[in-house]
Amino acid sequence: MSVLVAGSVALDDLKTPFGERRMVLGGSAVHASVAASFFAGVELVGTAGKDFPQAHADFLSSRGIGLSGLEIKEGRTFHWEGFYEYDMNTAHTVKTDLNVLSGFDPVLSPAHKKSTHIFLANLDPEVQLRIIDQIESPLLIAADTMNYWIENKGPALKKMISRTDIMLLNEMEARQLSEEPNLIKAAAVILGMGCRYVIIKKGEHGALLFSKGLNFSAPSFPQEQLTDPTGAGDSFAGGFIGYLSAVGLSGEDHLKKAVVIGSVMASFNVEDFSLERMKTLTRDEIISRYEHIQRCVHFGGLENNLFTGKE
Amino acid sequence: MSVLVAGSVALDDLKTPFGERRMVLGGSAVHASVAASFFAGVELVGTAGKDFPQAHADFLSSRGIGLSGLEIKEGRTFHWEGFYEYDMNTAHTVKTDLNVLSGFDPVLSPAHKKSTHIFLANLDPEVQLRIIDQIESPLLIAADTMNYWIENKGPALKKMISRTDIMLLNEMEARQLSEEPNLIKAAAVILGMGCRYVIIKKGEHGALLFSKGLNFSAPSFPQEQLTDPTGAGDSFAGGFIGYLSAVGLSGEDHLKKAVVIGSVMASFNVEDFSLERMKTLTRDEIISRYEHIQRCVHFGGLENNLFTGKE
Repeated sequence: MSVLVAGSVALDDLKTPFGERRMVLGGSAVHASVAASFFAGVELVGTAGKDFPQAHADFLSSRGIGLSGLEIKEGRTFHWEGFYEYDMNTAHTVKTDLNVLSGFDPVLSPAHKKSTHIFLANLDPEVQLRIIDQIESPLLIAADTMNYWIENKGPALKKMISRTDIMLLNEMEARQLSEEPNLIKAAAVILGMGCRYVIIKKGEHGALLFSKGLNFSAPSFPQEQLTDPTGAGDSFAGGFIGYLSAVGLSGEDHLKKAVVIGSVMASFNVEDFSLERMKTLTRDEIISRYEHIQRCVHFGGLENNLFTGKE
Repeated sequence: MSVLVAGSVALDDLKTPFGERRMVLGGSAVHASVAASFFAGVELVGTAGKDFPQAHADFLSSRGIGLSGLEIKEGRTFHWEGFYEYDMNTAHTVKTDLNVLSGFDPVLSPAHKKSTHIFLANLDPEVQLRIIDQIESPLLIAADTMNYWIENKGPALKKMISRTDIMLLNEMEARQLSEEPNLIKAAAVILGMGCRYVIIKKGEHGALLFSKGLNFSAPSFPQEQLTDPTGAGDSFAGGFIGYLSAVGLSGEDHLKKAVVIGSVMASFNVEDFSLERMKTLTRDEIISRYEHIQRCVHFGGLENNLFTGKE
């Protein structure tokens, strides 16, 4: 089984307390595809301009990521410029140049239409819907969004969610979309929109997985080396869908493990700018960090006769 | 073994999105003592004014909380007035009247000096130190503090921490005390001040337990019914120290379970104003919530042959 990832391909200008980088490889589809590529074959669907460096395409190909769905257009690649303050929790956008991403509305190839595992990174929900329409027999569709679409394309977004198996949002998006400050209630509201699972990504506080009757909480890896948070959410999603494609199962036990794998992949991605850390990442490092998180959360059962009887 | 809790006894005016209460029972020592009383005999050390209602004293006694260390003085009981916005994460103080708490500097009775498990709730760190000086052979001392002491009594606070086994702080206090925004690094800085364990309470995001070499993460109970957050941290601490006193052990396995019990007790306390929820709480409810958190965090090991080999 292979993974189809649709989203942005970007050249980013980034500034964090640990340095600056100009015109580095980024974009939601890139971060998600690279994270997924450790577990599965990946097909990337996106667009870039003529300025997109061949070295970046070569890097993606070297990771087994199919680029037949990456349309190279006249013009410049989508460009995001942003910075992070000292606490690194919030990305501040300086400038967004859509460039060739403006009007992006992909027509899938016959092979891509047969994809089983699909991750729709942040895009106009109407475009996400048209991609879903083209998939012939999906096993699992996961999707992301952002505050802009919640504010400006609410009805389309809700329709898209109703046709998605797993909706991924960050904490703020979940609160905004549901109009409910309590995350447990927020998840219930979003499940009510018709997806089967909701994942709320909480950055340094981990991630929550909900379905009707399921409530799973994964911590983040205890991260000391946070250099550049850009792409953390997409790396999470890529690891998540890549793992599920690799195991070919999507019961709750596997969804839980997929959430932890997502956290692990995000934790590596933030250790260096752009995709730099992913270039040296090994399977042993992934396994080791997964097992570390397992140890971080394990605790035993309660003793008998613990209570004073004052109740 | 029994627990000694020293801290404030208060009459609170509270306002949350779910209602208002005037002059209700509160205070750090009260919340901590009540939570601990489910697991252990508790001795409360504090002070109240002549206006302190007998019904409150009777309630504490009914929970097996010894009040021989509660000094009733001429004057009014410590009074806190505060409110919570819709998100409930931050307490906004309207007014603090120290009243009889001003100059509180307890002299322990011979029996109290023999206490084994001590929780020093938020107090002037110089007073916390003088209490520690009076304990003859403590097995476990846990302490809390607040931003005011971090800002105004740093040296005394650090000395107190060096004589404490377990330091409890919330997220902001940990960052402020350590001058380090990354919580993992913040915990290391605070451990460097000389305590053996640091617990960072993160409210809805759970709690972290650190020692040199240990990193444990507990989620909070997935709470839908959050009515009044006042006393959550002290209920956590009370459940934590009460449990450890009950089992009489303080290895890392038990410290982890104690953190989860702390989360459980806090989760009940916030379900109603003041101590109301604790009045009806049963051991079965505590056990059930503990087991719920166990299920929330459990996930299995990774499969073999998971990786594409692209690394």
